[in-house]
Amino acid sequence: MRLAELSGRSGVPTATIKYYLREGLLPPGERVSATQAEYGEAHLRRLRLVRALIQVGKVPVAAAREVLAAVDDDSLGQTIRLGAALWALPQGVRPEPDDPDAVAAAREVDRLLADLGWSTSREIGNLSPAYRTLVAALATLARLGYPCDAAHLAPYAEQMGRTAALDLDMLEEYPTPVEKVEAAVAAAVLYEPVLLSLRRLAQEEESARRYGL
Amino acid sequence: MRLAELSGRSGVPTATIKYYLREGLLPPGERVSATQAEYGEAHLRRLRLVRALIQVGKVPVAAAREVLAAVDDDSLGQTIRLGAALWALPQGVRPEPDDPDAVAAAREVDRLLADLGWSTSREIGNLSPAYRTLVAALATLARLGYPCDAAHLAPYAEQMGRTAALDLDMLEEYPTPVEKVEAAVAAAVLYEPVLLSLRRLAQEEESARRYGL
Repeated sequence: MRLAELSGRSGVPTATIKYYLREGLLPPGERVSATQAEYGEAHLRRLRLVRALIQVGKVPVAAAREVLAAVDDDSLGQTIRLGAALWALPQGVRPEPDDPDAVAAAREVDRLLADLGWSTSREIGNLSPAYRTLVAALATLARLGYPCDAAHLAPYAEQMGRTAALDLDMLEEYPTPVEKVEAAVAAAVLYEPVLLSLRRLAQEEESARRYGL
Repeated sequence: MRLAELSGRSGVPTATIKYYLREGLLPPGERVSATQAEYGEAHLRRLRLVRALIQVGKVPVAAAREVLAAVDDDSLGQTIRLGAALWALPQGVRPEPDDPDAVAAAREVDRLLADLGWSTSREIGNLSPAYRTLVAALATLARLGYPCDAAHLAPYAEQMGRTAALDLDMLEEYPTPVEKVEAAVAAAVLYEPVLLSLRRLAQEEESARRYGL
């Protein structure tokens, strides 16, 4: 399809598409003449992902470029490729290295991962932004007087393990490795508000069940 | 305890405590002389919550005041009191009323709530900020080409139902209604990054299990 059709089908203005092309967020189309290029379904899919990252996830252009480079790197194993794409997303706060609350929190996270038998997460440890964000969040909780230990976290981690299995089941529906990684990135950015609002709704429901209105 | 001890035990500078007192975020201490007031454990607890809201949750002062008014309103039933406190927290985006994607998304959410038998959430519906945030998030997903229907959401909602049961179990540990509501507000603000980073860790673990590293 030509640029105008790509714009029509995606709902993205041609000027924005040209900007994404210039910034290397969208691969160039196939040149068919000096002034025209041809785009395919992969461009349409990639355009959706770029919008999800930039418009909804508020991911800066440089970080989005890094995410997409990992999505496209088929020299990586699937877990590393998925990890590299997700790790390039902007992350929460990092723990301060000398903060005693962060040291204690890291100890609890390590105990949690050992108790759960999450051997990959233990092995990757501090390299994973999710690990660092968890440590920082627990350090903040402790500093504010709401300490939270491995025993307390374990049932939540088990629930999130089941949620992650649903996430990965959903990815299985996508036929190619690149589409799987694209869908995982979109899900990471777009599904967090869905999950958090489902949690609030569930809290209201459970509270009404226990205490009445 | 005097102001200096309240500051020492909470780690909050006295100038900040005075600011919270002036803004009505912390109830006044009991006057013991023209220049001194006495503070109790309830002040210490409230101070923790105010810091969680303002410093971590980035909740504006006016919204924090509204949250705390609901926390303190013992004329309300427990679910309504909890709801009022959580509803006063800043929320995600609201759906545009005339957006056809939002109308379709609201239909899917209503179907989901019916399928799950979440009768309170159905009854409250659009009044709940969590309902509106969910509708807006689903409308965004559809607009970006990642539609998501009730059947797809149901297993996630069931997981969040179990997570909400854990949340409410945790609240049971607090002895008084006001402490329960305080803990719920702190959890809403502080536990979201914990849950989201546990989800990412679980995804890494599950991916390594299925696809290797």
